[in-house]
Amino acid sequence: MIIDVHGHFTTTPPQVAGFRKRQVETFARTGLALDEPPPRVTDEEIRAGIEPNQLRKMNERGVDLTIFSPRAIGMDHHNADEASNAVWARYCNDLVARACGLYPDRFVPACQLPQAAGVPPRDRVFEELDRCVGERGFVAANLNPDPSGGHWSDPPLWDRQWWYPLYEKLVALDIPAMIHVSGSCNPNFNPAVASHYLNGDTAAFVQCMTSDLFKDFPTLRFVIPHGGGAVPYHWGRYRGIAQDMGLPPLEESVLKNLYFDTCVYHQPGIDLLLEVVPAANILFASETVGAVQGVDPQTGQAFDDTRRYIDASRSGNATSREQIFSGNALGVYPRLRSHPACAGCELPSVGRPHHPLDGAAS
Amino acid sequence: MIIDVHGHFTTTPPQVAGFRKRQVETFARTGLALDEPPPRVTDEEIRAGIEPNQLRKMNERGVDLTIFSPRAIGMDHHNADEASNAVWARYCNDLVARACGLYPDRFVPACQLPQAAGVPPRDRVFEELDRCVGERGFVAANLNPDPSGGHWSDPPLWDRQWWYPLYEKLVALDIPAMIHVSGSCNPNFNPAVASHYLNGDTAAFVQCMTSDLFKDFPTLRFVIPHGGGAVPYHWGRYRGIAQDMGLPPLEESVLKNLYFDTCVYHQPGIDLLLEVVPAANILFASETVGAVQGVDPQTGQAFDDTRRYIDASRSGNATSREQIFSGNALGVYPRLRSHPACAGCELPSVGRPHHPLDGAAS
Repeated sequence: MIIDVHGHFTTTPPQVAGFRKRQVETFARTGLALDEPPPRVTDEEIRAGIEPNQLRKMNERGVDLTIFSPRAIGMDHHNADEASNAVWARYCNDLVARACGLYPDRFVPACQLPQAAGVPPRDRVFEELDRCVGERGFVAANLNPDPSGGHWSDPPLWDRQWWYPLYEKLVALDIPAMIHVSGSCNPNFNPAVASHYLNGDTAAFVQCMTSDLFKDFPTLRFVIPHGGGAVPYHWGRYRGIAQDMGLPPLEESVLKNLYFDTCVYHQPGIDLLLEVVPAANILFASETVGAVQGVDPQTGQAFDDTRRYIDASRSGNATSREQIFSGNALGVYPRLRSHPACAGCELPSVGRPHHPLDGAAS
Repeated sequence: MIIDVHGHFTTTPPQVAGFRKRQVETFARTGLALDEPPPRVTDEEIRAGIEPNQLRKMNERGVDLTIFSPRAIGMDHHNADEASNAVWARYCNDLVARACGLYPDRFVPACQLPQAAGVPPRDRVFEELDRCVGERGFVAANLNPDPSGGHWSDPPLWDRQWWYPLYEKLVALDIPAMIHVSGSCNPNFNPAVASHYLNGDTAAFVQCMTSDLFKDFPTLRFVIPHGGGAVPYHWGRYRGIAQDMGLPPLEESVLKNLYFDTCVYHQPGIDLLLEVVPAANILFASETVGAVQGVDPQTGQAFDDTRRYIDASRSGNATSREQIFSGNALGVYPRLRSHPACAGCELPSVGRPHHPLDGAAS
């Protein structure tokens, strides 16, 4: 069983992006949300986006199931207000739900949140979470730590007033959040997939490491995508800074709650990740179809075919691979366990993450 | 011969930081530069800062020479105006020059620039460069890509109007710039040594990779500190993004001009750096006494004793180590060659960086 925890619906038909463009233009011109229903997308259009792309690659690479969420760079929280973004999130989440419904054995939905720059995540965000998780089988949410799109003008993740109500909601729903920025309107961080994404990952890790966030929410789970940004490469730096600052070791402060995905697109990077981060904190992912779509001329294989690097890694063994490929996902995303595709899966006996449903499931 | 290209005078006596505090308070209160001469520092105070700290560690670790610049987090460009920062830079640079003068065989100076948020680097910066490099034997400068201190409100490094005049000056003086942010006044990126530093490194690399900067300045040389931020860990991602964007391979677009230092504080990180980045683009450095000052309980050695990792790395060999420890530094910092400590050194015959003085020195 191989579960990819990080896939986006990057292949929607053009009217989807066209609708967002009109939303943004209307908001820029009038300061109001676009008064127009989102355009219809047919099942055939959804199939035409997914079958020759995400699904084909999953089949070629032996990936059984993908946790599927709306396009990350398309979340676009910085370009309109909360009212516009609520319509946009609902539309994008519904498209993801429909895609998952068309291929129920292969995709499980995760949702985009209607965040907006300068607005603390409250009722509109909670309503969308209730709708997606409570009513439609979503198993996770993508949380944007910088809804300002590269200006980083909202408070850090440890800010109690700003963020804690959202964490209470995530804990109550027992879903993890992937901490994933969207696009950047700051030219210093473009293209976002090269710069803003990785910087967002690194900043989020440090905000967690240097705060009481997981002391206050011991069952909250964050997934840091893109292999944790700069963090595993600088694991010694972080262990040392924590020690110099009088913080607990990383194992105590963050590793009960933080997970890194494997979206690292070369063998040495995956080797390092598997060498320094405990296998219990690594989740298989590829972000296909996403940031890098080409073939590596050095290997003749797709850059984002991350399964190959894990299979070939000198750092892994059969047990750790099983954890990374599926066991950990079932621990971090407990709602996955009721999914038909995961019915026969066992939780890993080694390095198994703690979460509220542990007792019930073991 | 072992040259550490990244050391800061982090151990100045307290009146130095006290002066900056008064500058910042005065500027915040009045909008004017403090009208007060910087406090005197005695030779004894300089020795007391350096001998039991930087110099002791260099001796213990077998480091012959350190390129020594003012404290990076102390550059503090975001907290006052250009006039205040010019006095501050001059004071800090003079202290570094005096330290190097007290230990001429062991330290070579690099300068801080009087940048300020919202102010393009012009005459005041050029005057300080002329004074330091032209008159006082400095061999390099630290360039802050984000003088706003974590708000990233000035243009990216590829902005012709903002930055190109400074690059013309650097090329004319034939010195490299280390691209090094200072502190952060944005709480999202604190502590800066954990977050803002690495994000600045990553952002700077991407700004170079996606622009014509080195096409326009083929002899300009940038050193990206802290092992290149997230970049080597994501080398496959960057090769892939460059390919997808139709940019030249990294070897052509940046590796003739960009160098990574070895401030990576654990063995797997250094192994990865030496595995993926050509040895010709790596410069030995430790940033001692700096970001991490403790002993790694896993090894019993100082985290920032980076020489050990390079000596022990499975990825290096005698030739690459010689390049990394000293040969590359003599190529990237040509003004080092006239330094007495480097008189007997040979430039490496393999993977030698190109620069204007190549013909004269070989």
